[in-house]
Amino acid sequence: MPFTHTSLAGFVWGVDELDRRQEILEALAQNPLKTICRNPYRLSRKELWTLRMKQNLELLELKMRLGWSAQHYLDALRIVCPDVASTSPNYRKLEADDLSTVFLKNLQAQMSSEQQAYWIPKAQNFEICGTYAQTELGHGSNVREIETTATFDAQTDEIVLNSPTLSSHKYWIGGLGVMATHTLVVARLIVSGKELGNHVFLVQVRDVQTHELVPNVHIYEQGEKTLGTFASMDNGVMRFTNNRIPRSQMLAGYVRLDRDGTYHKSENKMHSYTSMVIVRGLMSREIGQDVSKAIVIALRYAAFRRQFNRKDGAETRVIEYASVRNRLFPALCRAITMMLVGREIRDQVEHLKDNNLENLHLQTVGVKVWATERGVRDVEVARLSCGGHGNMAAAGLGSIYAQLSASRTYEGDNYVLSQQIGNAVNKHWNK
Amino acid sequence: MPFTHTSLAGFVWGVDELDRRQEILEALAQNPLKTICRNPYRLSRKELWTLRMKQNLELLELKMRLGWSAQHYLDALRIVCPDVASTSPNYRKLEADDLSTVFLKNLQAQMSSEQQAYWIPKAQNFEICGTYAQTELGHGSNVREIETTATFDAQTDEIVLNSPTLSSHKYWIGGLGVMATHTLVVARLIVSGKELGNHVFLVQVRDVQTHELVPNVHIYEQGEKTLGTFASMDNGVMRFTNNRIPRSQMLAGYVRLDRDGTYHKSENKMHSYTSMVIVRGLMSREIGQDVSKAIVIALRYAAFRRQFNRKDGAETRVIEYASVRNRLFPALCRAITMMLVGREIRDQVEHLKDNNLENLHLQTVGVKVWATERGVRDVEVARLSCGGHGNMAAAGLGSIYAQLSASRTYEGDNYVLSQQIGNAVNKHWNK
Repeated sequence: MPFTHTSLAGFVWGVDELDRRQEILEALAQNPLKTICRNPYRLSRKELWTLRMKQNLELLELKMRLGWSAQHYLDALRIVCPDVASTSPNYRKLEADDLSTVFLKNLQAQMSSEQQAYWIPKAQNFEICGTYAQTELGHGSNVREIETTATFDAQTDEIVLNSPTLSSHKYWIGGLGVMATHTLVVARLIVSGKELGNHVFLVQVRDVQTHELVPNVHIYEQGEKTLGTFASMDNGVMRFTNNRIPRSQMLAGYVRLDRDGTYHKSENKMHSYTSMVIVRGLMSREIGQDVSKAIVIALRYAAFRRQFNRKDGAETRVIEYASVRNRLFPALCRAITMMLVGREIRDQVEHLKDNNLENLHLQTVGVKVWATERGVRDVEVARLSCGGHGNMAAAGLGSIYAQLSASRTYEGDNYVLSQQIGNAVNKHWNK
Repeated sequence: MPFTHTSLAGFVWGVDELDRRQEILEALAQNPLKTICRNPYRLSRKELWTLRMKQNLELLELKMRLGWSAQHYLDALRIVCPDVASTSPNYRKLEADDLSTVFLKNLQAQMSSEQQAYWIPKAQNFEICGTYAQTELGHGSNVREIETTATFDAQTDEIVLNSPTLSSHKYWIGGLGVMATHTLVVARLIVSGKELGNHVFLVQVRDVQTHELVPNVHIYEQGEKTLGTFASMDNGVMRFTNNRIPRSQMLAGYVRLDRDGTYHKSENKMHSYTSMVIVRGLMSREIGQDVSKAIVIALRYAAFRRQFNRKDGAETRVIEYASVRNRLFPALCRAITMMLVGREIRDQVEHLKDNNLENLHLQTVGVKVWATERGVRDVEVARLSCGGHGNMAAAGLGSIYAQLSASRTYEGDNYVLSQQIGNAVNKHWNK
């Protein structure tokens, strides 16, 4: 059956995305997955996790066999495993056509060219499986207060990692609980007793053959998240007890630590700022897609369902009630706006210059807060307007809500972020 | 360790409830359950269901052994199985000191005294296990349009039940999917071709020995609900194909159908109206308890957690930020208000007279809409103000949200209910 789309669909979704979707659906029809599960809602977390791992492997195999682009793979992943959101840390894409986990992206961005030549092929060939460990039990938003220490030992030319307090344990690290063999670790560099601030270190945590934890690294999987979300993500907690790594595993793209402990630094504020801008901009688009899915489910139900006010032999379609219409149509408009705003920001990012970065940063902060707050609420509106039947798992509305629910917290807590808008207004007003 | 409470706790919770709680906790300490599960979040629905069934049996056994009141049993159930809400259909209490499932309550309220003498002991001794089947796939709020037919067959002195359409299938019937042997069925009575409106019939659906479905009754379990809620409730879908029951199983407390088909009816609008008033009034109290639990979790976290603005050697406690305080304390006040309003309504119900029923009905409608809308939102506020850590299942905030989430729909959809307030204002204004 040929897959066609209207010019409206092309406008809303973008012709490229629709074409790619067609290719993926045709490929999946010709190469059906072996691990389809008709009702994932009945599974325990462990069962769901195992299922998603198998499906992931099947899709990776398909990517290699059919020569899919990274974007094809990510889109296919989203079709097959809707609960493995691409906004979830391990799968999130930082650029439109680049399979870049946060790990790989940071290797590329923050390593020296010698380090890149050694490590990036290993990561790309899945010889190592990496993640990115920044958040600690005690510090999420306030990155500057991170407590993990990385002390240079000039005698052995090593760096010694330690977790001095309970609150310094690395926490919420996606992919670390079970999967990762390596991780990037954000820690305070200390040289000759002098604090030099946060730096990034590449640390092996598991043996690549046996997958056993290496000595002096202690990890446990963090357990279930609320509402069954991110079930297939193995968030990990990690503690170091005098874990030694060679000095060469301090990421040296923008800093250098010499054999004798001499420290060189070049400024690189641009990069990390840009990553956040891009991720938040993309979130708006993805949330818009999820919200529109929920609203369309609710609209189709409202067009079919009849209740009360029998006229001409049939009860009234629920969609004809103003209280239903006035809830669902504005929500659909907002969802489409989120998608268009996301695309607009992606275009701006492609022509990003240093002098419009603050402006774009503030735009994306505003959009992130708006899209996540409104989007989550609109998904609830969709579910509530389906009455009791909205509470069946099979209606698909609860899982969209659950998946989006945490978006108000990750990539910058909305309460903290929204203050940046006010601060910026104050700052420029005073000028 | 003795359990004491302050006068404030006595004011908020009521001294009776606190004393009962003390007795239950002491009894549970001396008779520890065999089926404790430290982490129910890791279970599949089927595993959780099995666990809750076993715990239920253990508590029933404890009730009988220790001579607990029904209220003790219900409170203990709520302590042990917080996800088996007492507002959930099968366990909900209609009066403060009465173990009345909806089934038993309706036997008492709607059966003739001869019927009561035969059936109520069977229900009380668990010889039969019953539920209440009103909602259909096509009709929830609009009860008058229920489609299941109950046709009197004068030749055999039987009533023949049929489900004439797909939309007439009984739906969402709690306890019917797996457990029930009997159910009350709301269906349109037809005598000699004449429609006599909705009546209630007692129907056996499963063999009491083999638990096999009886002929001409078709039931399937409805599957998972959103967000893992009501996992241990076996909602069922039921269809009749010429299922015959004796005429004596039409509930005859307020109506009578003679052997020759002569029909007698007495008015009984008071009863069903009153039930709804009581249930909605009690919801406010129970929701207030759940919301206060969530807010207290968040307040304790906010008092402990520090982030940003280091002063005198430590970062600032999160609770000291106005944006956190101003979210949590008003929510705590609302939660306590919900509990007090619920108690106030219970007192009014105890002194209920015919002439203040409409007034009380409107009050409970308003309270139900307010408590469920605000309560659900306040539980989310509690979770969001815990930042990332609010997203661990173990924090307990997601499951409270999920449990309350459907309350905006059951016992009267909030969008439909809230219009009754407006209608009443209009009606009395025009007088």
